[in-house]
Amino acid sequence: MNKSDLKLSRPCDQLPIKIDRAAPQTLQFQLFHGIQALILSGYLRPNELLPPFRELASQLQLSRNTVILAYQRLISEGYLETRPGVGTYVTGTLPERALHIQQTTPGTSENDDFLARRHPFLFHGDLHEIFPPRRLRPEIDFFVGRPDSTSFPGKLWSRLLTRKIAHGHGGMTEYGDPAGLPDLRAAIADHLAPARGIKADPDQIIIVAGIQEALNLLSRLLVASETRIAIESPCYQGAAYVFQAARAKILPVPVDDQGLDVDALPSGPVGVIYVTPSHQYPLGSTLSLERRLKLLEWAWDTGAYIIEDDYDSDFRYQGAPLFALAGLDRHESVIYLGTFSKSIGAGIRVGYIVAPHALARPLTALKGLLNNGNPWLEQAVLAEFLHSGSFAHHLRKIRKLYLSRRNTLIDCLHEHFGDSLISGAEGGMHIAWTLPPGLPDADKLAACALEAGVGIYPLAGGACSFIADDHQRRRLLMLGFSSVSESKIRDGIGRLAGLCAPDRAGAAIDYAI
Amino acid sequence: MNKSDLKLSRPCDQLPIKIDRAAPQTLQFQLFHGIQALILSGYLRPNELLPPFRELASQLQLSRNTVILAYQRLISEGYLETRPGVGTYVTGTLPERALHIQQTTPGTSENDDFLARRHPFLFHGDLHEIFPPRRLRPEIDFFVGRPDSTSFPGKLWSRLLTRKIAHGHGGMTEYGDPAGLPDLRAAIADHLAPARGIKADPDQIIIVAGIQEALNLLSRLLVASETRIAIESPCYQGAAYVFQAARAKILPVPVDDQGLDVDALPSGPVGVIYVTPSHQYPLGSTLSLERRLKLLEWAWDTGAYIIEDDYDSDFRYQGAPLFALAGLDRHESVIYLGTFSKSIGAGIRVGYIVAPHALARPLTALKGLLNNGNPWLEQAVLAEFLHSGSFAHHLRKIRKLYLSRRNTLIDCLHEHFGDSLISGAEGGMHIAWTLPPGLPDADKLAACALEAGVGIYPLAGGACSFIADDHQRRRLLMLGFSSVSESKIRDGIGRLAGLCAPDRAGAAIDYAI
Repeated sequence: MNKSDLKLSRPCDQLPIKIDRAAPQTLQFQLFHGIQALILSGYLRPNELLPPFRELASQLQLSRNTVILAYQRLISEGYLETRPGVGTYVTGTLPERALHIQQTTPGTSENDDFLARRHPFLFHGDLHEIFPPRRLRPEIDFFVGRPDSTSFPGKLWSRLLTRKIAHGHGGMTEYGDPAGLPDLRAAIADHLAPARGIKADPDQIIIVAGIQEALNLLSRLLVASETRIAIESPCYQGAAYVFQAARAKILPVPVDDQGLDVDALPSGPVGVIYVTPSHQYPLGSTLSLERRLKLLEWAWDTGAYIIEDDYDSDFRYQGAPLFALAGLDRHESVIYLGTFSKSIGAGIRVGYIVAPHALARPLTALKGLLNNGNPWLEQAVLAEFLHSGSFAHHLRKIRKLYLSRRNTLIDCLHEHFGDSLISGAEGGMHIAWTLPPGLPDADKLAACALEAGVGIYPLAGGACSFIADDHQRRRLLMLGFSSVSESKIRDGIGRLAGLCAPDRAGAAIDYAI
Repeated sequence: MNKSDLKLSRPCDQLPIKIDRAAPQTLQFQLFHGIQALILSGYLRPNELLPPFRELASQLQLSRNTVILAYQRLISEGYLETRPGVGTYVTGTLPERALHIQQTTPGTSENDDFLARRHPFLFHGDLHEIFPPRRLRPEIDFFVGRPDSTSFPGKLWSRLLTRKIAHGHGGMTEYGDPAGLPDLRAAIADHLAPARGIKADPDQIIIVAGIQEALNLLSRLLVASETRIAIESPCYQGAAYVFQAARAKILPVPVDDQGLDVDALPSGPVGVIYVTPSHQYPLGSTLSLERRLKLLEWAWDTGAYIIEDDYDSDFRYQGAPLFALAGLDRHESVIYLGTFSKSIGAGIRVGYIVAPHALARPLTALKGLLNNGNPWLEQAVLAEFLHSGSFAHHLRKIRKLYLSRRNTLIDCLHEHFGDSLISGAEGGMHIAWTLPPGLPDADKLAACALEAGVGIYPLAGGACSFIADDHQRRRLLMLGFSSVSESKIRDGIGRLAGLCAPDRAGAAIDYAI
């Protein structure tokens, strides 16, 4: 461009820039930012001359060097151009209309307008409620599925972290196999054979950030709009949300005290059935052997994959744990999901899929496409924790602790409420308590208990979906015991009893409604 | 059931069970497992009597107690039933047909049959190539986007890990806010204002496991089948794969030495445009201010969201970094993606989304639905690393290191190959090298270099998609310098030069083709 092409407007006299000598930003940065804002807001227009740097320095009481450096940065970023003998001016090619649009001030009502102009959202779902609710936690909280935080093996974990970091900067800086650290996958395979009767090849194991992520990968692989998906009813809310989000056709199957009612399984083609055979969530029943075999037979007949969510099978208090479905399956029907969220902690975000051979490769590709795999350090530490036998030791310790807490909870319920029906006590981290006659409905009792500082959870508020059974909805409460000390359990159930005894002082529930 | 209802078959004489006294499993477990296998394989059928435990003990030379305990476990798991005066027999209600199906032996050809019966897969995509390829790494590897592992601040990181664990067992065991740790989100907001000119509220920040996961969440929120998505061409393969997997209609927009060609932006409604304005991946150009403003204007006109992938903007060697698009945007058009994979390490799997206000809540719900949030420990450590100023210190240190490596690489290329065209050198962790005339095509050169122990990457093999330009495909090489020492850079480029000089001894490339 020749000098003659330039049609510059007259230099503006004074620039409305405020320099704050007390601000943490450098004077040069403040000046840069001030001029940039004047250009972006349209106050300074393309081809408009700026005051010579001497004048601006004198006007703002800055050193000439400060102004020169700010101008230089504005030039290097494309806001200003300069030409000897002409001066410094706003870049002529900056698009005026774009600057005009920049000028519009977004306000609340205009924001609505912005959204109306924008490409629409495709997701309007709710957040499922597995993480602690936003409200303040009750003093005594029987929230379901929380490990005891004081039992976390912090010192050992710290030592392992330090050791792994010292030997593995590459692990911290590089991408790894998206299916997970080979050491950890081997350690999990070694754990599963005796613990769950599953003979898995480490290649079948894909490390994920918990069962929730596993369900997403499987949904991506197996569920399209209108795919028929059978699930237990009631079931874990996070699972139902994933399948609903994929626009599957959900077929709820009822659950009784032996687990899934296999005689009520849907006929016709089904893509996937989602089940919790070890300790049905939320009711706590264990699927009987007979039903396990019938479920496998049904899967063979319909071609369905069985997703076995084995979220809390590490805790079994009565009898030996039943072999997992995946341990009985000889036809690669079962996709087994395990997690360390319950046995170690949800904060480490590690779970795993044991996939039929044919699914391992596509699931690995999907995990790579999703997030390039899990963080390295947690995997490295966990692998050593498993290999060294520390995990087995930790499990024995917390199993004992949880058993005492479970017993205390059951004793307290019997003591205060007589022979109530309690299900799911053979294992896991919570029980389902059927409210005895005379007590108010679960919703109401939970609301009153919360006032008294006690958190107890009806199915509808306890991360459950598809509660077809009105009796369950009204009369069942979930009580997690794993994170509550025995003295707090006694205190909490005592407070509940106080609320429910109308003839005692302090009883707070109005039975009229 | 009455005794008279039972129609038991005669007791079988001897059970074909092998007990191995040298095996690690207990004798009791071996016996349990042996009988279980006989039932599941159909050898022992429902209602078939088992030998009395005395006989079996004598046959297998086991103590009576061992047999009694194994029988008890089989009874408690539902395999056997017992009745006084009758004996112990296989549970009559076990479904015979299920057992028969269990009997079928899965073989290779039968496995195909199993798959044919099964619900089909919906995903057949490839794994994108961001993690190290499975083949052995070349001795000198100019792989793109790898941080220097020896610069990882291991000792400091260890100290922070130990401190955080000591004070936060709850963080390890509990679920957290799926949007991420509030401390970390605040620290990122503080970092972004001076570093990238972005004024973000911590509520707008969602912690993710890297940019790849961010793209998945955004795709889930904004991209349906046939949604029109504009992307740079060539572009990062991982991004293209995500949008293709969502069955979007992809509209490639060409890139030149000023970045995205804004005059070639598509007209008509577009849902999202995906761009890398700081350092175009893979070509390395920086989007000019003029084009940034025009892109924002276009987004305003079309209603498109702009996804700004700012993967390596922490490294800028010439001039000040341009403000991010998100820093110029006044209309909530821009969704900014940042990552610590390049500045700290990919193994920590932490990145973040800075979302327009209206998108923050749905993205948080989606992150919860996807995987309940990132691990706690990495977030807690990273927050303190940022707050304490250690991150800024670390960045200064590695910026200097990478600048030296970049300079060495450019010097070596000039020395051996004369004035080659090198783009993208102003910032980032790689350059794009246009092969000078006389050199073979990129594919061929890369293959020969690999034989000589040097990894160099043509666009087509370097995690890129939509390489419309044949010249780019044939004549461009990507050279990552951040993880290669200066002596190895000299060695590597020297080897390349040796391969390319036909008159020198050792020249290996046949120029005839």
